[in-house]
Amino acid sequence: MTNVNERSFKPADWGAAYEPGTYGRLPHIQSLDEAEGLDYLIAGVPFDTLTSYRAGTRSGPAAIRAAYGTGSFHVEHDIAVFDDINGADYGDLKVTNGDTPKTFSVITEEVGKILEKGIIPIILGGDHAITYPELKAYKEKFGPVSLIHFDSHTDTWGGAEDRPYPNHGSPFRWAIEDGCIDPKTSIQVGMRGLMGDEHDYDFANEHGFRHILAVDMHHMGIKKTADIMREIVGNRPVMVTFDIDFVDPQFAPGTGTPVPGGFTSFETLELIRLALTGLDIKGFDLVEVAPNYDPSEITQLLASRIIHEFIALIACKKAGITEYAYRGKE
Amino acid sequence: MTNVNERSFKPADWGAAYEPGTYGRLPHIQSLDEAEGLDYLIAGVPFDTLTSYRAGTRSGPAAIRAAYGTGSFHVEHDIAVFDDINGADYGDLKVTNGDTPKTFSVITEEVGKILEKGIIPIILGGDHAITYPELKAYKEKFGPVSLIHFDSHTDTWGGAEDRPYPNHGSPFRWAIEDGCIDPKTSIQVGMRGLMGDEHDYDFANEHGFRHILAVDMHHMGIKKTADIMREIVGNRPVMVTFDIDFVDPQFAPGTGTPVPGGFTSFETLELIRLALTGLDIKGFDLVEVAPNYDPSEITQLLASRIIHEFIALIACKKAGITEYAYRGKE
Amino acid sequence: MTNVNERSFKPADWGAAYEPGTYGRLPHIQSLDEAEGLDYLIAGVPFDTLTSYRAGTRSGPAAIRAAYGTGSFHVEHDIAVFDDINGADYGDLKVTNGDTPKTFSVITEEVGKILEKGIIPIILGGDHAITYPELKAYKEKFGPVSLIHFDSHTDTWGGAEDRPYPNHGSPFRWAIEDGCIDPKTSIQVGMRGLMGDEHDYDFANEHGFRHILAVDMHHMGIKKTADIMREIVGNRPVMVTFDIDFVDPQFAPGTGTPVPGGFTSFETLELIRLALTGLDIKGFDLVEVAPNYDPSEITQLLASRIIHEFIALIACKKAGITEYAYRGKE
Amino acid sequence: MTNVNERSFKPADWGAAYEPGTYGRLPHIQSLDEAEGLDYLIAGVPFDTLTSYRAGTRSGPAAIRAAYGTGSFHVEHDIAVFDDINGADYGDLKVTNGDTPKTFSVITEEVGKILEKGIIPIILGGDHAITYPELKAYKEKFGPVSLIHFDSHTDTWGGAEDRPYPNHGSPFRWAIEDGCIDPKTSIQVGMRGLMGDEHDYDFANEHGFRHILAVDMHHMGIKKTADIMREIVGNRPVMVTFDIDFVDPQFAPGTGTPVPGGFTSFETLELIRLALTGLDIKGFDLVEVAPNYDPSEITQLLASRIIHEFIALIACKKAGITEYAYRGKE
Amino acid sequence: MTNVNERSFKPADWGAAYEPGTYGRLPHIQSLDEAEGLDYLIAGVPFDTLTSYRAGTRSGPAAIRAAYGTGSFHVEHDIAVFDDINGADYGDLKVTNGDTPKTFSVITEEVGKILEKGIIPIILGGDHAITYPELKAYKEKFGPVSLIHFDSHTDTWGGAEDRPYPNHGSPFRWAIEDGCIDPKTSIQVGMRGLMGDEHDYDFANEHGFRHILAVDMHHMGIKKTADIMREIVGNRPVMVTFDIDFVDPQFAPGTGTPVPGGFTSFETLELIRLALTGLDIKGFDLVEVAPNYDPSEITQLLASRIIHEFIALIACKKAGITEYAYRGKE
Amino acid sequence: MTNVNERSFKPADWGAAYEPGTYGRLPHIQSLDEAEGLDYLIAGVPFDTLTSYRAGTRSGPAAIRAAYGTGSFHVEHDIAVFDDINGADYGDLKVTNGDTPKTFSVITEEVGKILEKGIIPIILGGDHAITYPELKAYKEKFGPVSLIHFDSHTDTWGGAEDRPYPNHGSPFRWAIEDGCIDPKTSIQVGMRGLMGDEHDYDFANEHGFRHILAVDMHHMGIKKTADIMREIVGNRPVMVTFDIDFVDPQFAPGTGTPVPGGFTSFETLELIRLALTGLDIKGFDLVEVAPNYDPSEITQLLASRIIHEFIALIACKKAGITEYAYRGKE
Repeated sequence: MTNVNERSFKPADWGAAYEPGTYGRLPHIQSLDEAEGLDYLIAGVPFDTLTSYRAGTRSGPAAIRAAYGTGSFHVEHDIAVFDDINGADYGDLKVTNGDTPKTFSVITEEVGKILEKGIIPIILGGDHAITYPELKAYKEKFGPVSLIHFDSHTDTWGGAEDRPYPNHGSPFRWAIEDGCIDPKTSIQVGMRGLMGDEHDYDFANEHGFRHILAVDMHHMGIKKTADIMREIVGNRPVMVTFDIDFVDPQFAPGTGTPVPGGFTSFETLELIRLALTGLDIKGFDLVEVAPNYDPSEITQLLASRIIHEFIALIACKKAGITEYAYRGKE
Repeated sequence: MTNVNERSFKPADWGAAYEPGTYGRLPHIQSLDEAEGLDYLIAGVPFDTLTSYRAGTRSGPAAIRAAYGTGSFHVEHDIAVFDDINGADYGDLKVTNGDTPKTFSVITEEVGKILEKGIIPIILGGDHAITYPELKAYKEKFGPVSLIHFDSHTDTWGGAEDRPYPNHGSPFRWAIEDGCIDPKTSIQVGMRGLMGDEHDYDFANEHGFRHILAVDMHHMGIKKTADIMREIVGNRPVMVTFDIDFVDPQFAPGTGTPVPGGFTSFETLELIRLALTGLDIKGFDLVEVAPNYDPSEITQLLASRIIHEFIALIACKKAGITEYAYRGKE
Repeated sequence: MTNVNERSFKPADWGAAYEPGTYGRLPHIQSLDEAEGLDYLIAGVPFDTLTSYRAGTRSGPAAIRAAYGTGSFHVEHDIAVFDDINGADYGDLKVTNGDTPKTFSVITEEVGKILEKGIIPIILGGDHAITYPELKAYKEKFGPVSLIHFDSHTDTWGGAEDRPYPNHGSPFRWAIEDGCIDPKTSIQVGMRGLMGDEHDYDFANEHGFRHILAVDMHHMGIKKTADIMREIVGNRPVMVTFDIDFVDPQFAPGTGTPVPGGFTSFETLELIRLALTGLDIKGFDLVEVAPNYDPSEITQLLASRIIHEFIALIACKKAGITEYAYRGKE
Repeated sequence: MTNVNERSFKPADWGAAYEPGTYGRLPHIQSLDEAEGLDYLIAGVPFDTLTSYRAGTRSGPAAIRAAYGTGSFHVEHDIAVFDDINGADYGDLKVTNGDTPKTFSVITEEVGKILEKGIIPIILGGDHAITYPELKAYKEKFGPVSLIHFDSHTDTWGGAEDRPYPNHGSPFRWAIEDGCIDPKTSIQVGMRGLMGDEHDYDFANEHGFRHILAVDMHHMGIKKTADIMREIVGNRPVMVTFDIDFVDPQFAPGTGTPVPGGFTSFETLELIRLALTGLDIKGFDLVEVAPNYDPSEITQLLASRIIHEFIALIACKKAGITEYAYRGKE
Repeated sequence: MTNVNERSFKPADWGAAYEPGTYGRLPHIQSLDEAEGLDYLIAGVPFDTLTSYRAGTRSGPAAIRAAYGTGSFHVEHDIAVFDDINGADYGDLKVTNGDTPKTFSVITEEVGKILEKGIIPIILGGDHAITYPELKAYKEKFGPVSLIHFDSHTDTWGGAEDRPYPNHGSPFRWAIEDGCIDPKTSIQVGMRGLMGDEHDYDFANEHGFRHILAVDMHHMGIKKTADIMREIVGNRPVMVTFDIDFVDPQFAPGTGTPVPGGFTSFETLELIRLALTGLDIKGFDLVEVAPNYDPSEITQLLASRIIHEFIALIACKKAGITEYAYRGKE
Repeated sequence: MTNVNERSFKPADWGAAYEPGTYGRLPHIQSLDEAEGLDYLIAGVPFDTLTSYRAGTRSGPAAIRAAYGTGSFHVEHDIAVFDDINGADYGDLKVTNGDTPKTFSVITEEVGKILEKGIIPIILGGDHAITYPELKAYKEKFGPVSLIHFDSHTDTWGGAEDRPYPNHGSPFRWAIEDGCIDPKTSIQVGMRGLMGDEHDYDFANEHGFRHILAVDMHHMGIKKTADIMREIVGNRPVMVTFDIDFVDPQFAPGTGTPVPGGFTSFETLELIRLALTGLDIKGFDLVEVAPNYDPSEITQLLASRIIHEFIALIACKKAGITEYAYRGKE
């Protein structure tokens, strides 16, 4: 069993022995036994079987890991991110594309073990269906959690009831029905575009699951948006799920179902800081990065940076920071 | 002769027999005889002979049709778009690249027939020169129309007077001279960048053709911009022409003559809703999509969405909605 | 019910009304009722759920249809391909990515109906797993058929026995076990690269399923290779399945599991002509085109041409041509 | 007037002042007055108005110039290419895309002036239609020339008789009818793929214009092919036109109408050396490079190398070399 | 020696003889002797030896020159840019990638000669390390200059003290230590992202070198940002250095070390106009354009436009304009 | 110290815990202490400072590792590659782009340590200059080795004598002068294209360093070529260096200085097997893979396969196989 005192669980120095293929050059662990005492753990889920439109998010985890951009000091939070927290990269979970039941079992089991050790999982998708088996593990550990969901879609579609699992458009309908999330203290933000049906929001509305439309966030601004999100969630245990298509397609073209009318990289990063700092977050995922549609590699660059914001939130929490020092006007 | 009651002129269900290669999976019609009673008709004009810089807009219609993004319910307008209107895809008009006179005749004739049936044409270009033969058909039917023109260029350049047709930089000079449009009730918006000549706006100014520079739209905002546009056009018959380079190159790299300093996808979509809802629009085109310069396919995605906004405007008009329910501040 | 005498089932003239999004500008049919009397029928199967490596073959059918390259006269066969045969494009079958059992049922059922009408199906994949439900339809109609299989992989891997269907690496193991194909009169050609296991060929060998390695085909040449293939198959009913990765990755980069050491486009086209002309072919498929890995669009170009070769074989057969007039040396 | 003794008309040394944007870093001349005494002159014709399929060859000349690959010593010919010949880059001719009559006049006039000075023009296209106005200049100077034509298409299609100029599929029909070329001492090589019509070769056959099909060249080899070509042309004045789609699409994806079944780069370069060394070549062009379909930039790399082979032929001719020292077997 | 009265030092007309490969079709000069009397001179420095992350800025100068977008009339400044100023393109300096000392000497020497003639150099990079040898030439001529530095990084990192030159992350540390710039009247703007170390700003702070973080510029707006910049610099001699990664990666993906959270093209262009108009600018550079990461070519398009803004500033200065006529609100 | 008996030094099973970012999913070692008893060791050298033309080979090692294509059974050699040999991936050496002396020291030292342990290094480049410091380590251990060099260039250029190290065009000139290689028992194969100078081969010829031109290899075939190579090298200790531009640019577009007229993937793989099986090879490198010029990812795919051929050679050697069982004709 690894002792965090005996091994460095920080990003490798640029000049040090290179840890190939891990997020942010973090150390790679092959077994959860090595994870004892860590604050967070990165794991990839290269599974895209349940994608409805463009394929390729199975290549997301590797792309996010390869992107440029680590560094230890976070200017906006004014904190040295890695000084007081430890983390590692667990590699990819053993998914089998095409075999959903088997893959979902692996996800629930592995995420469950990570949570059991008191470690915050940061999962790199994969398509959004994977959040459903993740949430089953959260329920096991915490009971129904509050969900904070960044996306351009509601992902509460119906229509797959004849199958034993959701597709990437319905994980949250299934999660609500299974009692994995508490809809009344959960919130979705960024919804826009054309709905399949007039009644797309009916399911969410019936269950008291709030959402903020993109058009409203554009008009009221990120500060007001963040305030609403924090008020709904309060100090409950939270799972954060981030679909990269929350961002505008022009800032994240490498995704399966892009929707125009989204947000810039600055709005996104600043909203994460404003809305999430100090919350009791039990875990994160970031899904739907499909690098084969982005030869400029900017989608994975932004995704990598969002993961870094997640890690910074963990560092802030540990440092007792409860709120982001916002420099903008009210 | 097709009766709209006997055939569905709605987008195909995802699970239904697939209509390959039409816009939004609409039914394909091969003859205008099948169009009787329709509200709108999509047609492609894959012609780019008159492009001055990067070639390739001939591939625009196919790319726009292939883009992701249909859906029946429009969140911002709060309307089920396809419930009360009918439309189809007419395929591409029989253009001949390299043979301008022949192609222009086809365009004028076909658009004329569509207008004659009381159907709203939505033309997918192709370079911007095609709007000139379109406007000849509008004149035939309605007399001089009011033009609403989204673009980064004025497209009123001189210099091709020795040829019997304009190039893609001068269709509106020709259209004014031919009396196709009424300049005093027409307006251009989005102009920016470097003009070929100090006197680029002289022609427009002499004819009372108003424009709003991009720099001014950036500073006064979309609401004020939309108000000016609506005031000028009033309740006259309108033709709407949208050059994709109105949008910033970063939001629409797949175009021939991109100009930095443009607008985001949200600003663009919201301006369309604010400025055009309730107007007496007789037809639309969307031009200058050159997909070979956009491997991420975001240009055609946005173009496809803009077409959807046009269809939503038709649905709003039929539903008696005269103004967009703007959620922003004045 | 359509009568082939009343409608043209030929590729549209370039100058005629455009049939958007069909293979070779063939007429599109929405129901098999319209197919009565046709010689062949194109159908897409945009399904890639069972891919093991790079995703994206769901975009194959649309890409192949969009590729350049029809024409009525076939120089090498010296035949006017479309003069005496009729065909159409049936669009895409109603597959559901992520739902294999449902999709496989649709494939078997639809291909079965096509075969029932005496029409030769030409299926555009999709990943190679789809050939298994196709073969179930062939068995229903013809009993065990002879298979001619172009590929760089054997696709007879084991290891998915705990699931009710194969993945894209094992359709032919399943097809043999189900009695869909007669292994002793079937043949695979083009195998190369690194096998997962020393015993990769054991299953095939045990069942008498012959293969020609790429290295042997390189050394003995296409004439000798074709002779062996024809001898094994004889005059039995044949199903032809073509995995685009038979060709070298440099000639077909747009595929999921490319393997270096393959064949040129000329070798491929000439082998098809030499090996297949005059055989009693009941149907074809062409699979594993993943266009998102090929920005130059040459993979779909070659795939489109191979489909044309298949159609030419149908024309030759109908014209009573039993052998390709080979111009090379023995 | 420039004296070749006063200025260096060789490629710039890598370490010398950089001549931006010229072929092979040759000196740039702005007026033909500076060309006095040169052996050859490069000029671009960025015109693609008459393209039938994919657009973009207007970007060909700049792409070819930007490609890597100069050097003074030619290994296969064993000659220091630039030691005894002088050349320059004339920039691009003043073409106007969309205005064919004006552009064709410019081409005929400028090429005529170059020929008049006894200089060998090497034209970088552009689409293949430009060869027609070039040939008009050759006729003026030399009477009907012999044509050596590398291509996958015959480019003798009919069907544009209602226009005062050919499109890119018919320049040689027009050139024969206008008496620009002597068909009986001319030859085409590389034809393949699907013809529009059974009678595609009728026009050529009627006029005694020989062709070698790709399939025949594949089977008889480059030596035999070259021998036939040399025999037909003899010691007559020759114009060489090279359509990059002669090469296989996989070796030259960046072109408008690619056809599978072509040749490798080695076969192409070796055929040029074998067939053309020592002939009385009055000028060259290389057309149909469309770089926007080739992100790997290999098409322009090969095109640049072919131009270098042309220059080497000029050097060989001046050095009195009449035949290529072929190292292969007969 | 060239007399500016005898030759046109303006961008070539589109219809005139083409000057291949120069910025904005300006005349090309091969020697500084031809530069006498010019107002500005463009020169490329295709050197990327000191890049830390993605390579390829050596291809920046050629890409910027090839981008679309010249024109003589500047709408926002309301000035005919080229009417009263003269300029040329000097081609690329003779750099040797891999040989830093030699290359730095060439840069210092050549920039020195340009400054000596009273001409404003506009250097196209190359990586940011090249600004250090440029600044050595400025110091020689003007003593320590004021620096205006647009970037997402501070480029004042330590850690290369064991080498005789900085890398692309430290030119300004070296420039301050060498007395090339006066830190107290200099300013950096746009810094963001993750710093290598908590003390990244220590060096700058110790020397009184001010910076404006991106987050602060986002919140206070461009007008306020520009005011601060102008106040610090005052009427001192200024060198302007622009790293294209100041802009958001989505607006400039073609760069080596992109950082999310940056600015739009409009914000960037408007800030340049607001902050720099009327200042006593002695020279400019624009660095870090790596076109191989941007197949859409929008990075070089924006870079080309920024160069044009620099030229417009020179024209404004000569015309006695001291301030930008800002149309926005305070 | 790791004992090879206690840990598996084989490629991970697909279903096993994933080893991210190593070649062929081999285990990653962080220190050479863990390498005790291994047969081979992979290491990356992401250094491209000395590249003359297109940049980007620093991204080569990561790209090669990410490519598809492991498998345990080698069909052509008829051997289970990993059964009797052990290997690992050492990650990347600590190079510093821009600092050649420091990087070269690291390379010589690390390769020296690997050789000292009796392990065969397989180095992934990087540009070709890195072979020089590698060879210094070989000389230390073995004295002058025999070199087998696959390339399109000789890499024996002169002209960098004023620097303390070669660039990527001259490593073998330096290696010969330093006595690292024994030129008389060494051989180069694949040379073609345009030489900088008539005397490019002089240096090699003077030192008795043999080469086989590409044109000769094309005409005599791979069997004869391999025979010559084996005869020259005999049973001496050999270092094998493979520049990916040996292959034709169309098979490996992702490289810095591609040269048309090269070889196919089959010719390349078969030549490696024929020429190298059974030789006393002390180490390998594969250099000049620049993935940013190959969006189809076929260059790294082929490179990955070549590395696998190298590993198969090690397995053959250990199994006592002295010659490749060639199936072709003499």
